[in-house]
Amino acid sequence: MNNLETIVKGGTIATASDIFKADIGIRGGKIVAIAEALEGADEIIDATGRLVLPGGIDSHVHISQPSGEGIVMADDFDSATRSAAFGGNTTLMPFCFQEKGQSLREALAWYHCLAEGKCHVDVSFHLIVSDPTPQVLGQELPALAEEGYTSFKMFMTYDDLKLTDREILETMSAAKVSGARAMIHAENDDAIAFLRDQAELAGDIAPKFHASTRPVPVEREATHRAISLAEIAGVPLVVVHVSNREAMEEIARARARGLKIYGETCPQYLVLTAEDLDIPHGAKNVCSPPPRDQASQVACWEGIEQGIFSVFSSDHCPFRYEDTAGKKHPGGEKSFRWIPNGIPGVETRLPILFSEGVGKGRIDLRRFVELTATNHARLYGLYPQKGTIAIGSDADIVLWDPDMEMTITQDILHHGSDYTPYEGFRVTGWPVLTMVRGRTVVAGGRMPSADPVGMHIARSKPAA
Amino acid sequence: MNNLETIVKGGTIATASDIFKADIGIRGGKIVAIAEALEGADEIIDATGRLVLPGGIDSHVHISQPSGEGIVMADDFDSATRSAAFGGNTTLMPFCFQEKGQSLREALAWYHCLAEGKCHVDVSFHLIVSDPTPQVLGQELPALAEEGYTSFKMFMTYDDLKLTDREILETMSAAKVSGARAMIHAENDDAIAFLRDQAELAGDIAPKFHASTRPVPVEREATHRAISLAEIAGVPLVVVHVSNREAMEEIARARARGLKIYGETCPQYLVLTAEDLDIPHGAKNVCSPPPRDQASQVACWEGIEQGIFSVFSSDHCPFRYEDTAGKKHPGGEKSFRWIPNGIPGVETRLPILFSEGVGKGRIDLRRFVELTATNHARLYGLYPQKGTIAIGSDADIVLWDPDMEMTITQDILHHGSDYTPYEGFRVTGWPVLTMVRGRTVVAGGRMPSADPVGMHIARSKPAA
Amino acid sequence: MNNLETIVKGGTIATASDIFKADIGIRGGKIVAIAEALEGADEIIDATGRLVLPGGIDSHVHISQPSGEGIVMADDFDSATRSAAFGGNTTLMPFCFQEKGQSLREALAWYHCLAEGKCHVDVSFHLIVSDPTPQVLGQELPALAEEGYTSFKMFMTYDDLKLTDREILETMSAAKVSGARAMIHAENDDAIAFLRDQAELAGDIAPKFHASTRPVPVEREATHRAISLAEIAGVPLVVVHVSNREAMEEIARARARGLKIYGETCPQYLVLTAEDLDIPHGAKNVCSPPPRDQASQVACWEGIEQGIFSVFSSDHCPFRYEDTAGKKHPGGEKSFRWIPNGIPGVETRLPILFSEGVGKGRIDLRRFVELTATNHARLYGLYPQKGTIAIGSDADIVLWDPDMEMTITQDILHHGSDYTPYEGFRVTGWPVLTMVRGRTVVAGGRMPSADPVGMHIARSKPAA
Amino acid sequence: MNNLETIVKGGTIATASDIFKADIGIRGGKIVAIAEALEGADEIIDATGRLVLPGGIDSHVHISQPSGEGIVMADDFDSATRSAAFGGNTTLMPFCFQEKGQSLREALAWYHCLAEGKCHVDVSFHLIVSDPTPQVLGQELPALAEEGYTSFKMFMTYDDLKLTDREILETMSAAKVSGARAMIHAENDDAIAFLRDQAELAGDIAPKFHASTRPVPVEREATHRAISLAEIAGVPLVVVHVSNREAMEEIARARARGLKIYGETCPQYLVLTAEDLDIPHGAKNVCSPPPRDQASQVACWEGIEQGIFSVFSSDHCPFRYEDTAGKKHPGGEKSFRWIPNGIPGVETRLPILFSEGVGKGRIDLRRFVELTATNHARLYGLYPQKGTIAIGSDADIVLWDPDMEMTITQDILHHGSDYTPYEGFRVTGWPVLTMVRGRTVVAGGRMPSADPVGMHIARSKPAA
Repeated sequence: MNNLETIVKGGTIATASDIFKADIGIRGGKIVAIAEALEGADEIIDATGRLVLPGGIDSHVHISQPSGEGIVMADDFDSATRSAAFGGNTTLMPFCFQEKGQSLREALAWYHCLAEGKCHVDVSFHLIVSDPTPQVLGQELPALAEEGYTSFKMFMTYDDLKLTDREILETMSAAKVSGARAMIHAENDDAIAFLRDQAELAGDIAPKFHASTRPVPVEREATHRAISLAEIAGVPLVVVHVSNREAMEEIARARARGLKIYGETCPQYLVLTAEDLDIPHGAKNVCSPPPRDQASQVACWEGIEQGIFSVFSSDHCPFRYEDTAGKKHPGGEKSFRWIPNGIPGVETRLPILFSEGVGKGRIDLRRFVELTATNHARLYGLYPQKGTIAIGSDADIVLWDPDMEMTITQDILHHGSDYTPYEGFRVTGWPVLTMVRGRTVVAGGRMPSADPVGMHIARSKPAA
Repeated sequence: MNNLETIVKGGTIATASDIFKADIGIRGGKIVAIAEALEGADEIIDATGRLVLPGGIDSHVHISQPSGEGIVMADDFDSATRSAAFGGNTTLMPFCFQEKGQSLREALAWYHCLAEGKCHVDVSFHLIVSDPTPQVLGQELPALAEEGYTSFKMFMTYDDLKLTDREILETMSAAKVSGARAMIHAENDDAIAFLRDQAELAGDIAPKFHASTRPVPVEREATHRAISLAEIAGVPLVVVHVSNREAMEEIARARARGLKIYGETCPQYLVLTAEDLDIPHGAKNVCSPPPRDQASQVACWEGIEQGIFSVFSSDHCPFRYEDTAGKKHPGGEKSFRWIPNGIPGVETRLPILFSEGVGKGRIDLRRFVELTATNHARLYGLYPQKGTIAIGSDADIVLWDPDMEMTITQDILHHGSDYTPYEGFRVTGWPVLTMVRGRTVVAGGRMPSADPVGMHIARSKPAA
Repeated sequence: MNNLETIVKGGTIATASDIFKADIGIRGGKIVAIAEALEGADEIIDATGRLVLPGGIDSHVHISQPSGEGIVMADDFDSATRSAAFGGNTTLMPFCFQEKGQSLREALAWYHCLAEGKCHVDVSFHLIVSDPTPQVLGQELPALAEEGYTSFKMFMTYDDLKLTDREILETMSAAKVSGARAMIHAENDDAIAFLRDQAELAGDIAPKFHASTRPVPVEREATHRAISLAEIAGVPLVVVHVSNREAMEEIARARARGLKIYGETCPQYLVLTAEDLDIPHGAKNVCSPPPRDQASQVACWEGIEQGIFSVFSSDHCPFRYEDTAGKKHPGGEKSFRWIPNGIPGVETRLPILFSEGVGKGRIDLRRFVELTATNHARLYGLYPQKGTIAIGSDADIVLWDPDMEMTITQDILHHGSDYTPYEGFRVTGWPVLTMVRGRTVVAGGRMPSADPVGMHIARSKPAA
Repeated sequence: MNNLETIVKGGTIATASDIFKADIGIRGGKIVAIAEALEGADEIIDATGRLVLPGGIDSHVHISQPSGEGIVMADDFDSATRSAAFGGNTTLMPFCFQEKGQSLREALAWYHCLAEGKCHVDVSFHLIVSDPTPQVLGQELPALAEEGYTSFKMFMTYDDLKLTDREILETMSAAKVSGARAMIHAENDDAIAFLRDQAELAGDIAPKFHASTRPVPVEREATHRAISLAEIAGVPLVVVHVSNREAMEEIARARARGLKIYGETCPQYLVLTAEDLDIPHGAKNVCSPPPRDQASQVACWEGIEQGIFSVFSSDHCPFRYEDTAGKKHPGGEKSFRWIPNGIPGVETRLPILFSEGVGKGRIDLRRFVELTATNHARLYGLYPQKGTIAIGSDADIVLWDPDMEMTITQDILHHGSDYTPYEGFRVTGWPVLTMVRGRTVVAGGRMPSADPVGMHIARSKPAA
């Protein structure tokens, strides 16, 4: 085996299927050899005592999106991908948000412009369809799917995003025709508005009422409805950020009817609860759906163990507390309605799942790899280029120290938010080197080069 | 026991609980005695060999409603209540339909005007709320509930009727405040429109496409959603005309969560299937939800046996085939979209359930009484005035010949439609005498008096 | 209406279906009239302000049975039926226990001998089949079913009672042939023995280990197995004394498969938990299955409300604490294995269900009547002679004061046990008069006559 | 990469996780390199156009077992492993059957003696515990688990094999203590005997009555019971040869309760039905549980797709029709009771699943590998030595021609049976080369050497 550029030497490789000791040989940014002992490369990376994992893929990340009320999202592509790289990720899938009246191509042009030359890891855009005109559905979506934009998300809530059931059906039909993957944010907007107005009328405006006005039936209902619309339209569907057992049961029941429904959950549903909104600065933990209770955490772990969830994402949606809730709502006299929905998490996703999942015996390392990398690639058409360690795949690799003890605090993170919801959370296991297509982007807690190596990845159409 | 006006002598009485031989003594339109042997009344009705049942209550009947496109419903209050009386019913619960812009009181005034002096059995109006303004919900509904209009229906489909989820929540809240009973027609309007437009585009316009464009998931989804909205609003709910197992399961699951959800099914879901729309003049069998398949019939029978369904109603919604599909769509070149949705059935409901249910051993006689009379009274606040044979209750009684063999044909019926969906259907068991508050309105296949004895009944608020 | 012997005047009658004010006229021990106002009887019983209910039927009562180890059951037929009458019951269904080697007729002769002339309420024997020889199954069971012994019970545990699966199948087959009703005590004997031996080996011999060695899976397994055997043999089955949600689910699932499976629960599963065995004198609360936990109480209430349970019985199985655990196990040095399984309850069943169920709004009065009287009669072939208030039925009536507040204590009870598990339990509602076939046996807290009026009732074969 | 003994060149490798083109380098019987292009080995195997799969592991195989009535099983270790090798398998897990009175070591000595020097693929014995004495459970099982015999099977039916519930609990406890894997054959023996005796009494002795006397509830009941016993004993459990939806549901429900229950199904449940016993020579298709119906086939496919089943085995249990049913029951006058239970299948397992599963789009190639190799290794402690293609694993490899069309007939197979149940079944995809620890045992439809290379594999203790 000659002409290797890089050898990752002496580590324990883990894929979604296998764990074994071997060296990895890299050439041209690709994995070209996996063997007992490789020699003869320009660069030898010592992985002794390390796990050698496929780089994390985070398929649910918001970057540089507008968030109403003139609020600026706290991460641009530079900071978001930097934070991601430090967190052991090699590919992000941020959203390209179509504003009403905009064409998808216009939206893409804008987001590409924002991302161009800024990315420290690879990125690949999901589309958010908010204005499903015949032109958008009949012309743009199919053409863009051919060009490698093979997934899009629909929202059932938020004024500037939500689609009617009819629009969802039409958009799903376009997914079917174009072979793109459909994703959905499932909450019943009318029910939220009804409960929110009731709460405000009663003077219940503190952050904790964000959670109580989006109760489980609001999510379960929309989940069942979204699945039913997918059933009628005849398409597979990814239900993102599932937070509780009842919504999980809708997914399980749908599968038992033979439907292809995939579930995603996130760190906030494993380690936060609604009580985290009922503390000083509880606005920092406002996201949608809201974290629930202990029983829901248990349920989500079961979903992870038993396969209800195919992917584990961050739903990274970063805001600066100082810019938003903090400054704008002095004294808390403004309603929770105005708190932007979302929390940062792209850098902490992998350590939390590794420590709470693998470390505590809830899942094995293979399942960790599957949930954090391989299944994202499979679900969204990145596989086999991304998501595994195999001959011919991109050399997207993270070295993981399974024994490193860390306490998550804002000052060790690299995102643009001015806080982390996980402040003080202790984990065991941390990424110590991140390599994108054979180039080391993070090592020893530093970025060896300021040069952003990330590029946009065109994807294939996912299998059903 | 003196001063009896009427004695029903020698029959076998059946209530929802008991079956026993006894005489019934009537005075002032009320049942005042039930005993081994009664004597001394002005009138003795010989019930030897007959079942003596509480008169049928049909809580789902459309009379004199407009149906869009200038189509006239085939029954007015005279013909509908006449047909009902011949079919063994003593109380009907027709709908008072609020048109957009109308107040509920205006609507009620109109329907009372239509009914006044025309009814051969007692009637009590459900309201249909189609325009839930703050005035309607905040003022009218509570006031009308106090006056005895203690139930109302909401629609999730039909352009001139459907409410948004938010409107449903607001209307349910008004039900909660006023103590009225909420009912819902559960089909997803957007999904129907989507499928209907697709079908028409493909040239699929025959009546059978009415069924294929309202498939089971359309009903199941709306059922789950309606139940979820009731859960959020905190009210009990009656899901009317349930047609299939999947919708039934939503009701069963809701109950298992502790909710008070009641189900209704109808004859068409026991003896028709979607194939009955795929025959010459299949438009005659168009109703919503559409009849399904054999397995759904089996499921509905299970729901009747096992208690998913509390009430068995006709959903009588009569049209003249000659006036509508027949005349207006010569050659069938107009789409199924224009066929008015609804079939007649107020006169055939009891014989069909008796023959197919009691006669074939699927249910016992007590369950028949419960499904056709007692539970309607309980669910909608008519009990104990109506719905049973007990001291103090109205003498609403039907004598039933359990052995009479009949073939249902249009020429033996008394409704305003020019056909019956059950033409040629053979039954064993038929009502031979109908008595409303002690006055015989049908006997020996004739009406002894042309005098319409029916009156409007103000109801109490139903128990949860 | 002449020649009445007794009139129960001015009360509010409740049946499984109806609640209404009326007088009841009695002649020859039968109800012959129910009317607004009756007059002219030898005896007028004032029921003003009282509920007039069908007398309680308790279909699960152990009287004068041997209990191994020479222990004497604390009630004979005199004391048991006396206690029952004071508790508002008019019919008991005690067990006639076949010992190994005995014929059923021998066993019946013995129990009839014990009961003859001693009973203060009517009784009707279930058989316990412990030795299902071909003679017993092929000859005796069918003949006895013809003579009115139309039910029998099988045990899956207890050394001197338990049947193998093969024996259960053979015995069920005999039930099918003879039309008798099959009942089963469902606990896995092997699993109990395994856990008990393990516990004793570990020195865990206190009464609380009775509960921990009969955990929920022990009951759920046997319930599923018993139902499966009934499915294979093609017979309906009553699963007695169900204690928890998992066993309930087995019943519910079986019904969903179309099987006729009936459930029974008891007061101990509504108001006791396993913690009641972990107190001083915890042996007083040892019964099988053991009481579980709070969640199981909630589950059992749901089963009562939603119809999983058809009957509510006492499983009265009385011992004297002084004679058994108390005396025989001084210092507690003997294992829980030796504590006789069973608690008294025939006198407290109705007040507990009325107070906790009707009083607290969990069930209505009709459901109370159904659970405590009507369904017992229907299930075991006593209906319509017993179990309701209707013309022609036995005048088995209890007057109930719904407002009487009582504290259950040993000194107000009439059973043979020297304690009650419900000591200090407060209830609202109490029986104030008990009438068996028109003869008042308890009134004003006293027995007006020492004369035991009870007789044995031959039963018809129950409907499926 | 030097010193390679063998290179498998140019094929498409599939593991449970990944599919990619690469060469495999082998040294010392192990896989030491996987790379884009390898060179320099003694032997180059051209895999162009082939799938390169982990060799099949069949964890459910009966070889040389006695079968009562003096019947000789049709395969010894020579023929069974030869047949397996031709069918693409590299490891078999046959049973070592303990006869009553025998120690496990005696049984092992005998089976090792039978296998020694005869095996063409590797083997590793499961124990069958039929006589769980304290010595066996307390001494032998733990010691043998340390020596690499880390699994055993229990039977709930068959006179010479079946254990009581108590024995199962005791044996499971030994599994828990020793860390061995417990497997169970779940059918209710009493119910089978009851139905069989009934059938024979009715003269129903044809082979088809083998199926009707082992109906679904017989298997579902035992499955629920076995799982309950595992729940009580606190051990994971493999339920082997699951044939229908109801038994599958028991597994699914157990998992939802948090239990570790694994399921296995077999080719006969995917492509045969009970009707295959109701043909001339139907005795050829007698196995237990029996094949069911079309709906059960659909259910088993769902279980394969959705993960109810972890492993897909043959339950190879070969008899010679001429020696058994054929000769012994001329004219069919002997009952189905005497037909030995079992069919051959070790050679046809992989082609059937590949053709019907992968070929027809029901599962992907990764799931095929998982079901036929990887999960067997994981479940029974062979992983990572066996079951995957990874550095350090045994070079157990099969080259698969995905396009080869074959018709299964007796004359192309190598087992000892004189028939195949799949006679005439057409498949696409067939193994063309089988390599055990780097040595080619089958290629081009022939065995290049008569030398039996197979050895016995000591296993590690499986993870829970």
